[in-house]
Amino acid sequence: MNTHFVPSFKLPGSVSFKPRTVSQLSVRSGLIEPDGGKLVDLHVAEPERGLKKREAALLPRVKLSRIDLQWVHVLSEGWASPLTGFMRESEFLQTLHFNSLRLGDGSFVNMSVPIVLAIDDSQKERIAESKRVTLVDLDDNPVAILNNIEIYKHPKEERIARTWGTTAPGLPYVEETITKAGNWLIGGDLEVIEPIKYHDGLDRFRLSPVELRQEFEKRNADAVFAFQLRNPVHNGHALLMTDTRRRLLEMGYKNPILLLHPLGGYTKADDVPLSWRMKQHEKVLEDGVLDPETTVVSIFPSPMHYAGPTEVQWHAKARINAGANFYIVGRDPAGMGHPIEKRDLYDADHGKKVLSMAPGLERLNILPFRVY
Amino acid sequence: MNTHFVPSFKLPGSVSFKPRTVSQLSVRSGLIEPDGGKLVDLHVAEPERGLKKREAALLPRVKLSRIDLQWVHVLSEGWASPLTGFMRESEFLQTLHFNSLRLGDGSFVNMSVPIVLAIDDSQKERIAESKRVTLVDLDDNPVAILNNIEIYKHPKEERIARTWGTTAPGLPYVEETITKAGNWLIGGDLEVIEPIKYHDGLDRFRLSPVELRQEFEKRNADAVFAFQLRNPVHNGHALLMTDTRRRLLEMGYKNPILLLHPLGGYTKADDVPLSWRMKQHEKVLEDGVLDPETTVVSIFPSPMHYAGPTEVQWHAKARINAGANFYIVGRDPAGMGHPIEKRDLYDADHGKKVLSMAPGLERLNILPFRVY
Repeated sequence: MNTHFVPSFKLPGSVSFKPRTVSQLSVRSGLIEPDGGKLVDLHVAEPERGLKKREAALLPRVKLSRIDLQWVHVLSEGWASPLTGFMRESEFLQTLHFNSLRLGDGSFVNMSVPIVLAIDDSQKERIAESKRVTLVDLDDNPVAILNNIEIYKHPKEERIARTWGTTAPGLPYVEETITKAGNWLIGGDLEVIEPIKYHDGLDRFRLSPVELRQEFEKRNADAVFAFQLRNPVHNGHALLMTDTRRRLLEMGYKNPILLLHPLGGYTKADDVPLSWRMKQHEKVLEDGVLDPETTVVSIFPSPMHYAGPTEVQWHAKARINAGANFYIVGRDPAGMGHPIEKRDLYDADHGKKVLSMAPGLERLNILPFRVY
Repeated sequence: MNTHFVPSFKLPGSVSFKPRTVSQLSVRSGLIEPDGGKLVDLHVAEPERGLKKREAALLPRVKLSRIDLQWVHVLSEGWASPLTGFMRESEFLQTLHFNSLRLGDGSFVNMSVPIVLAIDDSQKERIAESKRVTLVDLDDNPVAILNNIEIYKHPKEERIARTWGTTAPGLPYVEETITKAGNWLIGGDLEVIEPIKYHDGLDRFRLSPVELRQEFEKRNADAVFAFQLRNPVHNGHALLMTDTRRRLLEMGYKNPILLLHPLGGYTKADDVPLSWRMKQHEKVLEDGVLDPETTVVSIFPSPMHYAGPTEVQWHAKARINAGANFYIVGRDPAGMGHPIEKRDLYDADHGKKVLSMAPGLERLNILPFRVY
């Protein structure tokens, strides 16, 4: 749908030329192409929802945790394009070992954190020979159907070691989602029955990659620079963001747009809660510290791993899919203190180094920064 | 030097044709191209050795362990091509996170185990601002000069977790080389003063990648299939190897050669010692169980990590550099029991799966096998 800086007058020889409407032109506005060339959308079309619900009622059920549901949300909107559901073993192994997935044409897309769904022995037995399962939320409402499923072993220790570079007890995401999880993983293709909503007053900020791209195109953005904050905006951040726009203008871009993109999924107990952060982000715009004309504030629905250099690749990759071609990376991104030693878990510089070398992120411009 | 299946009559248009001698033709016999296009050779040319020794005497010294020296050997002969010495941080991080290195042209070569040299605080202080150091063996003989050095932190826990997928105590290579090692790593470009020899009666079996390629060319090999054994050859193995040759002949190859290639570097205490394995391998050839005409027995000088799916990539990649385009992989390659749990450390099938998906190994044909 979108192409990467292909001027509209330069058509490939084999494509027949048709006059374009204004709307078609605006779609080809030059936003970076999503991974795999096409944004994945896993929602069931509205007219088919009733049918899918009836199908779902007849299938074995797997209950989703709060965090599992956040991943369904992430997958459903194509943040993890070209993934079409929870990972099968081949994708899981490539993620653990290579932080990337090889596509059919031999090219690589980045994929650094496993997006997987764990089940236990009794769930596995209940699924038996079924090729499809229904995923239900905590209240047993059907959320999605997982098709062409593959069930494989959940090598917890190896998953933790390769994702976090430590197996020390006390990693928040690990304790929350892995330690007590089942010994099997179930992968497959998702059909999500209805868009995921949280009804917490913040859903209006949860723009999907498609909606963000439409917003950037509406504003005639020719560059999008993304910034993920886990904390309230302070003056250093605000300066950084206005300064980045200035530098992009100097580079020749006509209208660089800031995607101010706080993470909205699971965070550890001592992080600032999302609702506070959103209030503060809105205030910064109201007060004119950031220009509302050139800033889009939205929520990134992913849960947080706190996996440092491994996770920052995911944060960057997901923003490519939302149309960002510049990514601002600070000191120790996605880092935290070591859970049992008196030091940071990751070298503060490894995040930006790994990001700049990561397979599949070649198209993204990395902007390292330091707040003084 | 060598090209990958380029028939000699099909010359690129821009290359001027010169009549070739037989020897030139035999060099272009169709062996697989080494990683990076050119085999690395880090030895100092013979006429310069005296000069280099005098230079070496003036530089700060770093003492090599027995295993460090094996890595100098590995690097010196180009098994790890295109690496030109112990890894700098950029190569170390790419190895840990991506099991591959990106070359200048954007392509990837596989590199799954860190080839690094650890130093402690006092060694680091002694090196001070020097840009070069001399590496000496256990008897203080100069072995090599390391040039344009880079000293960086040795993140032991992270290195172990990302390489082995566990940090459980009792991993043999970890206990032997990492746990008590220094907190710094030193990378740089190697100049190896003299070829490394062990004087154990087995040096004649230690053919370098260049020598192996010459041997394959001498025999007019048009396919080379490599097999690494940690144990004595038994009948199942022998059958497998003759059967593989038969299958390759059926595929249309005229003269497939077996590289029977036991690992000769560090192994754990309860593995069968190299000298026994070599005696037994020779016996198998003498007895005609394997055909000496179509088999080359040689020693692979690398130390053993026992890092399963991560390490098997290294074992395969090194054999590409020695001219092999087929690699035989068995159940649980480079695996071992979990050091503290009653199970195998790795899933027995992950090795061949990871190998078949690994970046930079696309040119290698993987032959999975099962011995009954």
